[in-house]
Amino acid sequence: MYLTGTMQFNEAGHLEIGGIDVVDLARDYGTPLWVIDELGFRQNCRAFRDAFARQGNSLVLYASKALTSLAIIRMVNEEGLGLDVVSGGELYTALEAGFPPQLIYFHGNNKSIDEITLAIDNSVGRIVVDNFYELSLLSDLCRAKNYTQDILLRITPGVEAHTHEFIQTGQIDSKFGFTLPDGQAMEGIKMALNSPNINLVGLHCHIGSQVFEMDSFRQATALMMDFVVEIHNKLGYQLDEIDMGGGFGIYYSAGDDPTYADDWADAVMSTVAEKARQANINIPRVIVEPGRAIVGPAGVTIYSIGSWKEVTNVRKYLAVDGGMADNIRTALYDAKYSAILGNKANLSPQEVVSIAGKCCESGDMLIWDIELPAAEAGDLLVVFATGAYNYSMSSNYNRLPRPAMVLVNDGRSDVIIKRETYADLISNDIIPQRLKAPR
Amino acid sequence: MYLTGTMQFNEAGHLEIGGIDVVDLARDYGTPLWVIDELGFRQNCRAFRDAFARQGNSLVLYASKALTSLAIIRMVNEEGLGLDVVSGGELYTALEAGFPPQLIYFHGNNKSIDEITLAIDNSVGRIVVDNFYELSLLSDLCRAKNYTQDILLRITPGVEAHTHEFIQTGQIDSKFGFTLPDGQAMEGIKMALNSPNINLVGLHCHIGSQVFEMDSFRQATALMMDFVVEIHNKLGYQLDEIDMGGGFGIYYSAGDDPTYADDWADAVMSTVAEKARQANINIPRVIVEPGRAIVGPAGVTIYSIGSWKEVTNVRKYLAVDGGMADNIRTALYDAKYSAILGNKANLSPQEVVSIAGKCCESGDMLIWDIELPAAEAGDLLVVFATGAYNYSMSSNYNRLPRPAMVLVNDGRSDVIIKRETYADLISNDIIPQRLKAPR
Repeated sequence: MYLTGTMQFNEAGHLEIGGIDVVDLARDYGTPLWVIDELGFRQNCRAFRDAFARQGNSLVLYASKALTSLAIIRMVNEEGLGLDVVSGGELYTALEAGFPPQLIYFHGNNKSIDEITLAIDNSVGRIVVDNFYELSLLSDLCRAKNYTQDILLRITPGVEAHTHEFIQTGQIDSKFGFTLPDGQAMEGIKMALNSPNINLVGLHCHIGSQVFEMDSFRQATALMMDFVVEIHNKLGYQLDEIDMGGGFGIYYSAGDDPTYADDWADAVMSTVAEKARQANINIPRVIVEPGRAIVGPAGVTIYSIGSWKEVTNVRKYLAVDGGMADNIRTALYDAKYSAILGNKANLSPQEVVSIAGKCCESGDMLIWDIELPAAEAGDLLVVFATGAYNYSMSSNYNRLPRPAMVLVNDGRSDVIIKRETYADLISNDIIPQRLKAPR
Repeated sequence: MYLTGTMQFNEAGHLEIGGIDVVDLARDYGTPLWVIDELGFRQNCRAFRDAFARQGNSLVLYASKALTSLAIIRMVNEEGLGLDVVSGGELYTALEAGFPPQLIYFHGNNKSIDEITLAIDNSVGRIVVDNFYELSLLSDLCRAKNYTQDILLRITPGVEAHTHEFIQTGQIDSKFGFTLPDGQAMEGIKMALNSPNINLVGLHCHIGSQVFEMDSFRQATALMMDFVVEIHNKLGYQLDEIDMGGGFGIYYSAGDDPTYADDWADAVMSTVAEKARQANINIPRVIVEPGRAIVGPAGVTIYSIGSWKEVTNVRKYLAVDGGMADNIRTALYDAKYSAILGNKANLSPQEVVSIAGKCCESGDMLIWDIELPAAEAGDLLVVFATGAYNYSMSSNYNRLPRPAMVLVNDGRSDVIIKRETYADLISNDIIPQRLKAPR
């Protein structure tokens, strides 16, 4: 279940990705190393693009907060997807990679004036307006530039997806969006329609992350379409787009039961079409924003095993050369991962161990209680489904330089993000003159 | 309780630090901004140094994982403290700042060969050996260089400090150290004494973080000293150092009840002296490693308030221009912080709000339910006690550039860490040749 894309075991009993043995990748680039399977990434892009296209007028946006870099953005563009960015930094990265601005949707609950200005000046396709304050700010900034911006309004529909507390975003008590049940959403719509230099194109919502139940999407889509119909009937205004956000769940470990892109497309688009038909309104274009679902399974992390510790009658710890600095999800969300020994992929599991990171903190654990073959220092631990929210959330905690990222395809490997050096860590440090004197 | 060092309210009703109004700091350097109160930092260094020195032979190490930079290390050196580093990157930073290597103690549960080599080649004072594997590796590396390294052995005494689960490190089921109760610690001592090119100087332990009960330190010190005595009596070997780690709690919010440096010094050093006297052995030198306790209270973060959202009958959110990218402690540890409006420090609290960050994630909250004066966009939220584990754990999540850090003292301010730029974010990105063609 964790082997996706081009990942397979080779004759040497090693894992290979993109036709390259992970032992060779570790030797050539060092560890920890993030590896992105180019074909897997592209296949995932196409799966969502095609599944939604088969059902009608749609646009799939890659959610760049999951993982972005110049090379990643290039591939997203080549696969014909749009892009969702959530900050000036993500927008800058997309623009530097030459991504078409009209296919960029700009999200965020607290966009700064500088960020909004960057978006307007580069003619991004949509700004997804989160709140009254932003709506007013955006209108003012556009008016000053004599420019009209296409927007979506972010709605909080009040659906709770069954997922981890931290990543539920559709519920009412959320920092995001115009609340639907209490009437703020309708107020926002009216304000948007009356705001100069604002063109209201549609609605956006996001019900959470790692969602496996397609009924959650169906229910949220129905609520959103009911609102589209209400706007049509009460205000005589037809919205042209409905953006149902992301959240499509992926396989991390036993118990995760992802479904197919087609199921998601059907859940959303058949609901949109059905509601539009019932109300006799135009069917809006459907937007979705998979991020994790595209890049998550296409990425693995290769670590080298170093020290170990056996706590008598309690637990055996194996330590790797990375940890919460490159993958904070275990500590932050209690996330579960699958892993194997990449250089002993043909051996049977022999013991239950727990994988510790190298940070000076007890909470720096990557995997609790996993079955592995007998491991020794120098073995390669490969953790699966680390393509999303690993690099993007990575830190220099304990002054660990961030690992390199390599793109592999058909026997070829290319560094797409260079490994940080010790010198990088102090590159922004300054010693004030008065502290420069010898003691 | 949150005002420490030079922090005070000025005549304009603003917060000032180091004699500088936070409104001026925000204007001159932008927000978010980390501010370090130089005098507060130095006073905290001196408080621990002097408290332990008054009680006898001791060395206070600044734990650089809390916050390190070239300028910070310079001040630590000027104040006469030693240094605790936990990685090659922290060691590199210290060496680049010109810190005396003999006063550096090198920690970590999984030091790499490269890191150990860097430490040996620069003659660091002590390597704190964590496990059997490292002991053997270190001995081999030293022998190859015909060099003898002074070490401490990290012991897991089995004391549970009453603190957050993530930061308890003294309990038995820990990735760190040689377990005392099951005999592994004694085995480690014997192995160290028999290892070529290794000079065993003493023991180290760390019982957790944010510890307020001095009895926890007393109890752990007693256990460690009993072991020192046992080693003396059974093996005829006198240990010269006992390093009781860090963990001294600081004030973040109501309920935190920190004590004085003198109480900690007394709890540890009187126990050491008493146990040594009873057993008629030499009193070992005492080492402690405050990090958070020195730099935590000396740092604040200045944010600008942007958007807000009122969820009817539920909650009011105020959003700031930073969040979990610059302070992950709320999301990670459920940490509580105190904050005020720095430009309205003289106004009375008027409403209960929750402070949201700007990251696209529901879990990106900084403070839940805090009383503040009525706030509007552009007001400055100052969060206290952010000197430790904010910058050091910071990420570029959502591609947010990391804030600048400014050192203030007596009306003077100096940038000690430059604000990251958008260009910094992609400085390690590479586009492979095959992705460079226009679509």
